[in-house]
Amino acid sequence: MNQDKNKTALQELNGIEQPDSLSKEALNKVLYQRKQQPTPETLVAQILEGNKTALSRAITLVESTQAAHQEKANSIIQSCLPKANRSIRIGITGVPGVGKSTFIEAFGKYLTSIGKKVAVLAIDPSSSISHGSILGDKTRMEELVKDENAYIRPSASGNTLGGVARKTRETIILCEAAGFDTIIIETVGVGQSETAVHSMVDFFLLLKIAGAGDELQGIKRGIMEMADAIIINKADGDNVAKAKLAKTEFNRALHLFPTKKSQWTPTVSTCSAYEKKGIEDVWETITKYINLVKDNGYFEENRRNQNQFWMMETINEQLKLDFYNHKQVMALLEQNKKALQNNEISPFAAALNLLEAYYSK
Amino acid sequence: MNQDKNKTALQELNGIEQPDSLSKEALNKVLYQRKQQPTPETLVAQILEGNKTALSRAITLVESTQAAHQEKANSIIQSCLPKANRSIRIGITGVPGVGKSTFIEAFGKYLTSIGKKVAVLAIDPSSSISHGSILGDKTRMEELVKDENAYIRPSASGNTLGGVARKTRETIILCEAAGFDTIIIETVGVGQSETAVHSMVDFFLLLKIAGAGDELQGIKRGIMEMADAIIINKADGDNVAKAKLAKTEFNRALHLFPTKKSQWTPTVSTCSAYEKKGIEDVWETITKYINLVKDNGYFEENRRNQNQFWMMETINEQLKLDFYNHKQVMALLEQNKKALQNNEISPFAAALNLLEAYYSK
Repeated sequence: MNQDKNKTALQELNGIEQPDSLSKEALNKVLYQRKQQPTPETLVAQILEGNKTALSRAITLVESTQAAHQEKANSIIQSCLPKANRSIRIGITGVPGVGKSTFIEAFGKYLTSIGKKVAVLAIDPSSSISHGSILGDKTRMEELVKDENAYIRPSASGNTLGGVARKTRETIILCEAAGFDTIIIETVGVGQSETAVHSMVDFFLLLKIAGAGDELQGIKRGIMEMADAIIINKADGDNVAKAKLAKTEFNRALHLFPTKKSQWTPTVSTCSAYEKKGIEDVWETITKYINLVKDNGYFEENRRNQNQFWMMETINEQLKLDFYNHKQVMALLEQNKKALQNNEISPFAAALNLLEAYYSK
Repeated sequence: MNQDKNKTALQELNGIEQPDSLSKEALNKVLYQRKQQPTPETLVAQILEGNKTALSRAITLVESTQAAHQEKANSIIQSCLPKANRSIRIGITGVPGVGKSTFIEAFGKYLTSIGKKVAVLAIDPSSSISHGSILGDKTRMEELVKDENAYIRPSASGNTLGGVARKTRETIILCEAAGFDTIIIETVGVGQSETAVHSMVDFFLLLKIAGAGDELQGIKRGIMEMADAIIINKADGDNVAKAKLAKTEFNRALHLFPTKKSQWTPTVSTCSAYEKKGIEDVWETITKYINLVKDNGYFEENRRNQNQFWMMETINEQLKLDFYNHKQVMALLEQNKKALQNNEISPFAAALNLLEAYYSK
């Protein structure tokens, strides 16, 4: 309205000039954030180009507990799937002190030197408490972290091994889609984490050191039977003779084990990750294994079984979660457990009590 | 109404005499059946007196799939519980051909000779197909079956290991209430049955023979690490030297395994069940073990853990049964499995599809 036309009390004076409601600063911030959070489509395109920043962002979405993030993550994984599944997945375990980081650093550097692209992941359900006990500190792999053809990601955090394992499995898909052809998954000999890692890799490697007492080697029972190779690390200096003796002993022990479904006979070798000795042999062993199992069909069979295993695990975990969080079940659980411990009720009768409460909802 | 009083058309003539609606024969039959099927209270009283016929009848109720029988079984178990839990439970495994029956016969006879009351049960999920491959034929234990202080029961049949295992666990309770102080549970090295047996016994014994190839010894991986004792059977005649050599080898292998939670160091010994040599030593080993674990608290701890394990197993099995028998889940399962095998979907996404269908009921 033109103020000069109607000189009445109804007119308004022009006020002072107002600043833009959208300041340039704020606008830039929003634009920056939009740039920070690309669409799933953009992320997928970038991942397929091998962009590590995009890969990291997608993994962060996978690890997020927010529903919106999970939805995005699911769509990214779905789009990456056709380009995934083309790598060798290697699990590495060993108690703290056997030199896992030094080994992975040396092994990873060797792999990139022969043209491989290496992703290093970790499963450590304890890391949410200890704030990343393994791989949390990337500086432990100084050389590898700077390597253009390597990608290192600390363990996802989470309260359950199932949750951490799922995130790691989905991270494998993303890494493969980003062109990483060798995936190393590290775990520490705690709880059920080796079983989880064993169920998502093609080759399982157990790292040991010679001459250490049983306490130090105190890795979970059953791990030795899972191993496709036992590597006795720190075979350097005064340790060489001890390592060789340990090799003989493990070889003797392994031949007492039954034949593996893969038809592979587990190997024992020594190495010094520190002196970078014996690293090449490890890769040679893995190559031999992969050739064998790709020939006899076990490679594909194993991956198919692993896929089905993880589908069923996810279902099972959810069913249990729903059950044990059910109000009436929660109300009855402790008293039934107590009666069970006092032999006042049989395990089956206790289970029936709880199941009745659950299904009567 | 008296027909002589009112001679009208409304009256009725007496018909011919009707036979008793309940014939004497039928009555006897019912009475006989009632006698055949005593009340739960009667069965419990008889079981507690050590009556083997009552024990067998109760076990038959436990094994029945009829709801009425299961209800009776549950009430019997509940009443037997306070008198149960006072035995040594021993698991015995070994591939066919190692002489399990001969060993159990010799071992059982030795135990009764020193005043023990021995019950021999079996877990063989395959027996419903093969009609009782182990312990089906009691004549394989001719001496033991005639022994007043021994009780032999073939494996319960069933389609799932979980079902068979539950029935066996409940049978243990009944046997213990009947005064059997040594429970032997036999299994054959098939599928997950050793794991099931291991989860319900105090002591786990692996029977082997010397000199047999890996194929013959082809027992499931992980069994060796479960064993509290490895017994090399058939150490007789020409086999003695070979058995001794095998003993040395197994001893060497076992010391490479991590320490057991029970603090027990597994032992290796040779025996000849046929010549009844080395049988006494087996019992001595078990006695030593029991003393150790009763002292250090592991015996009780292990039984408590086993109870909780079986409660949770029963719940988990039921949850899965309900899930996989759900109409919508069944309709979607195959296509999701197929997509999974073709890497068109991630295990987690497939699981989500099925879970959504389940919970939308």
